[in-house]
Amino acid sequence: MELLKEKILKEGTVGESGILKVDSFLNHQLDIQFLNEIGKEFKELFSDKKITKILTIEASGIAIASIAAQYFNVPVVFAKKTESKNLDKETYDSDVYSFTKGKTYKIKVSKKYIQANDKVLILDDFLANGYAALGLINIVEKAGGSVEGVGIVIEKGFQEGGKRLRESGVNLKSLVTIESLENNTIKFK
Amino acid sequence: MELLKEKILKEGTVGESGILKVDSFLNHQLDIQFLNEIGKEFKELFSDKKITKILTIEASGIAIASIAAQYFNVPVVFAKKTESKNLDKETYDSDVYSFTKGKTYKIKVSKKYIQANDKVLILDDFLANGYAALGLINIVEKAGGSVEGVGIVIEKGFQEGGKRLRESGVNLKSLVTIESLENNTIKFK
Repeated sequence: MELLKEKILKEGTVGESGILKVDSFLNHQLDIQFLNEIGKEFKELFSDKKITKILTIEASGIAIASIAAQYFNVPVVFAKKTESKNLDKETYDSDVYSFTKGKTYKIKVSKKYIQANDKVLILDDFLANGYAALGLINIVEKAGGSVEGVGIVIEKGFQEGGKRLRESGVNLKSLVTIESLENNTIKFK
Repeated sequence: MELLKEKILKEGTVGESGILKVDSFLNHQLDIQFLNEIGKEFKELFSDKKITKILTIEASGIAIASIAAQYFNVPVVFAKKTESKNLDKETYDSDVYSFTKGKTYKIKVSKKYIQANDKVLILDDFLANGYAALGLINIVEKAGGSVEGVGIVIEKGFQEGGKRLRESGVNLKSLVTIESLENNTIKFK
């Protein structure tokens, strides 16, 4: 997605320990007009799939999924990372290893909101090691639903997530793939 | 907002310790079509204000703010509750007391994304004791911006937040106000 590459080159910065910062439009401040372009692109990439629900993970995925859902005309469900009094007791859980935090956390989705007849599109902002996406796929499988695709805004091509998901047969599409962030320079694949 | 009252009566449940659960459309699963109705309503309620930015707090506020922002044509900023490697070092912070969790947590917004010339609309899903809203107001004030209004989807009228905010001169508008949840019955004001 050319528009996204331009946006990343214009507004993105490479922070410490090779982190790509896009918090001016995707992670902290949200450029809603631009997220609409992202939503349209996801709709186009997955136009051959009949989607009944979009699944994402709090917090950064929520804006992307919500705006994109308008083009699919389906509800969004976001997996919870934190304990919440509001969450049902009956949940599908999955363990997700966070590389940056060096620990495993649990993600949860109420059994009410992913069903066996659901055809799910998983959307998220970043794909690095792929553990969050695998956790979400695991939850859909536990519910007996089908994962029709995984849509990622920015794939870090130099990490293992993309390979890991594609090799396990996931219909993964990333809007842009970063080849390298070496020498603080953003290089696309 | 009549449509919202109907939705709450149809889908909402009263859980343990007087918690109103609306996770079928607002807190966990997100009814995006319905959130568009909420967004339009906020636009109407604050149509006399010139807004440059919508501020909310992760995670439940993000979907509401993102969809509503389409009617205001402005970016969203969401305050972070959790430490994040992606967050700038230069932040405006505020302490928020969580009644349900019985402890104080810090919310943070990068100094880049709220500026002295910003006219901010604060949006959130619930107003109970008002501490989250006061924390967000505090952050806008630290940045030298002005709070043009606070829009809340569901105000718990039997808790102190609404009174607290209105008495301090905040332009607070809630789409619905719950008068009581006694005997597991939802009663609107």
